[in-house]
Amino acid sequence: MAQRLVVIGGDAGGMAAASQARRQQPDLEIVALEKGPWTSYSACGIPYLVGGDIDSIDRLIARSPQEFRTNHRIDARVNHEVMAIDLQARSLEVRDHEHDRTYKLGFDILHLGLGAVPIRPRLPGMDTAHVHGVQTLTDAAELLEDVTTGSEVGDVVVVGGGYIGLEIAEAFIKRGCHVTVVDQSPEVMGTLDPDMGALVSKAMRNEGIEVRCNETVEGVDGEYVLTSSGHIKADLVVLGLGVAPNSKLASDAGVVTGVRGAISVDQRQHTSADGVWAAGDCCESFHLISRRAVYVALGTVANKQGRVAGTNIGGGYAVFPGVVGTAVTKLCSTEVGRTGLTEKEATAAGFEFATATVQSTTRAGYFPGTGWITVKLVAERVTGRLLGAQVVGQEGAAKRIDVLATAITAGMTAEDVVGLDLSYAPPFSPVWDPVAIAARKAVDAVIRRG
Amino acid sequence: MAQRLVVIGGDAGGMAAASQARRQQPDLEIVALEKGPWTSYSACGIPYLVGGDIDSIDRLIARSPQEFRTNHRIDARVNHEVMAIDLQARSLEVRDHEHDRTYKLGFDILHLGLGAVPIRPRLPGMDTAHVHGVQTLTDAAELLEDVTTGSEVGDVVVVGGGYIGLEIAEAFIKRGCHVTVVDQSPEVMGTLDPDMGALVSKAMRNEGIEVRCNETVEGVDGEYVLTSSGHIKADLVVLGLGVAPNSKLASDAGVVTGVRGAISVDQRQHTSADGVWAAGDCCESFHLISRRAVYVALGTVANKQGRVAGTNIGGGYAVFPGVVGTAVTKLCSTEVGRTGLTEKEATAAGFEFATATVQSTTRAGYFPGTGWITVKLVAERVTGRLLGAQVVGQEGAAKRIDVLATAITAGMTAEDVVGLDLSYAPPFSPVWDPVAIAARKAVDAVIRRG
Repeated sequence: MAQRLVVIGGDAGGMAAASQARRQQPDLEIVALEKGPWTSYSACGIPYLVGGDIDSIDRLIARSPQEFRTNHRIDARVNHEVMAIDLQARSLEVRDHEHDRTYKLGFDILHLGLGAVPIRPRLPGMDTAHVHGVQTLTDAAELLEDVTTGSEVGDVVVVGGGYIGLEIAEAFIKRGCHVTVVDQSPEVMGTLDPDMGALVSKAMRNEGIEVRCNETVEGVDGEYVLTSSGHIKADLVVLGLGVAPNSKLASDAGVVTGVRGAISVDQRQHTSADGVWAAGDCCESFHLISRRAVYVALGTVANKQGRVAGTNIGGGYAVFPGVVGTAVTKLCSTEVGRTGLTEKEATAAGFEFATATVQSTTRAGYFPGTGWITVKLVAERVTGRLLGAQVVGQEGAAKRIDVLATAITAGMTAEDVVGLDLSYAPPFSPVWDPVAIAARKAVDAVIRRG
Repeated sequence: MAQRLVVIGGDAGGMAAASQARRQQPDLEIVALEKGPWTSYSACGIPYLVGGDIDSIDRLIARSPQEFRTNHRIDARVNHEVMAIDLQARSLEVRDHEHDRTYKLGFDILHLGLGAVPIRPRLPGMDTAHVHGVQTLTDAAELLEDVTTGSEVGDVVVVGGGYIGLEIAEAFIKRGCHVTVVDQSPEVMGTLDPDMGALVSKAMRNEGIEVRCNETVEGVDGEYVLTSSGHIKADLVVLGLGVAPNSKLASDAGVVTGVRGAISVDQRQHTSADGVWAAGDCCESFHLISRRAVYVALGTVANKQGRVAGTNIGGGYAVFPGVVGTAVTKLCSTEVGRTGLTEKEATAAGFEFATATVQSTTRAGYFPGTGWITVKLVAERVTGRLLGAQVVGQEGAAKRIDVLATAITAGMTAEDVVGLDLSYAPPFSPVWDPVAIAARKAVDAVIRRG
């Protein structure tokens, strides 16, 4: 009899594994259970839907349950929520919301693509109807309805100035709302060093966003957000505080969790429980520079981990090599990228380092459309090995972080980056790419630092 | 008494060395001799000047002779042409064109930044006045005058469909001319494999450029370019056949030259002659993948080599690590990039390999402004090591070649590239970056190839 793989979670971490397992094993029976009404959608696209860049919620859906059934022979069941996992009995308790019934489903292999939930502080009023996350297509549909059904949304308060905070702030500015971003840190983008975050705070203010840093949200009271400095009018409150692993189902069943409660996995994405795998926003990743388990909730990582898990589930061999903490976003015309460790992270990991920050241009200085770009590098003391990089700038800035992510993964020093044969033509960069200019300065900084 | 460094050549290969030597050695006497009227200009910017993207020839000049004198204490002499080098006497014969006199100039250290000359085929009519190179600011001034002084330039024939050919074709299309590009190869962009070159040929035709491949130019006869297939009306003929090292002065003096007549240098940019250094378009480079001397005439390489030579001249220690053959260009909205070895180059270097070509999008498929991008990878048989990459696509395509240049330099395999933590957000890439998708396919191709 064919083995049965049950996948919990219909998004990237789950379905990438299901599809890859199918490719490896034509005989496997595969059931995928998703508690919501959609499979395989781009949560990252939600701000652009809300902002009007994308005209329909359907465009965010990569593959429907029907497509999984027809093209991949995966029994994808939406509105089916797993209530409990019994590892002894190798069985799940599943709630079919559509037909309002509960049933048991056995498995030989279990894969957890449980995803994440937006961090919702336990403060008064946080559960009221006009306080939204930006995580699921249900959130997307609700936010979209708010901005497209008339004039009632004038004032939007975004709690947290991270990636989601930035992107959703842009979306509401495009919709003509008055947007305030509240962040308890000295600058927005707490995943950058404050000097780089300051460039983003400034860019937000230039776009007409009210940025209130060093301010803590204390609750929501009707039409007002209460903070450590007063109260802010809010027809709509959006949570941009990041996400936490949705791992409770797994930990309740006895699966070991680690950093921030994320499911612990080995290099092949196997959990502590026999025949139980995990991938994506519900589990840990290994950081190649800090050499520690970290929690990274990103679509890229979820897809890669899912593919690795699926290969292994299907009897192949694959290893997830780890992350270096790469991320990009944009706020209107300002692009932001980071990879590796920030100063704070490098210090926490025990490194001593020098830093170098340079301002340059995205194209040749004389070329039309050239914009500013600031590149900051963190390089290890003595060895000069690159530990981290941050980029803020205009069009063409963000994707330069990939060069640095690659260099950091390869263990390159700042001197190695100076020597890289990077491309040049006036429409694309100055003759010394900003990345190489920053590396030159980092070489000097490491030498001075000793 | 202070030592005297004489630099021949007032552009990147010369002046980067002069400036760096000055930084290292405040006491050095530095004289720089340039036969033309300008120092340190961006030859790469000329097509954009001709096309009208840049409004003044002055914008292409990075530093004037006066700036070198004042800020760097470099005695920069323009319109001073070196006629002969006497290595025994350690002396130069210099022609001062402005004052119509010749003088001797002694040196302790000599640095050669002799640059390159456009390849001008020895064919009838090639020396007539309306046949131009695209190399010096004199060329730029002449071409600019042609397009801005009325209606006499209607038909432009570009001989050669390489980087300069593409860029200058775009320039004349923008000026409303009828442009024909003649290339003897099956497709334009002979530095790409023909399958990728075909994408560029197609893009050129879409922009209204007449592309005539497999056709050889046989001469110029008045208003006509004669080819193997007939004749083409031409008010102006532009040579886009690339450049050759301008090394005769050095080889006449007994300095050893190598591939394509370029000056041979060691890792520190030292030539075969004691105390004689060279950098830029006049000398060889070491290719990190083929492990052979190659001739690469690019501003990036010239600047880096110049900096290395200058450091060594000034008593420091620096090594030029080599090139991987990275280059980018664009034709209107189509971007082109390459790095490492093409199929042909890989075969010539003795490699066995598999290839993978994928078509993807520059941004998330649903994101406004997303464009097509084709990525081709060449990966070594058995090991899977990346040997080369080519990219053709729309906005955001070209600079992705830098990730692959970095990966190739680091000796990464296709599997390593699949695992890279590349950045993702919908405005910047699909969740699997096209580079990673191509790498996935290359992994499969290497496995199939065995």
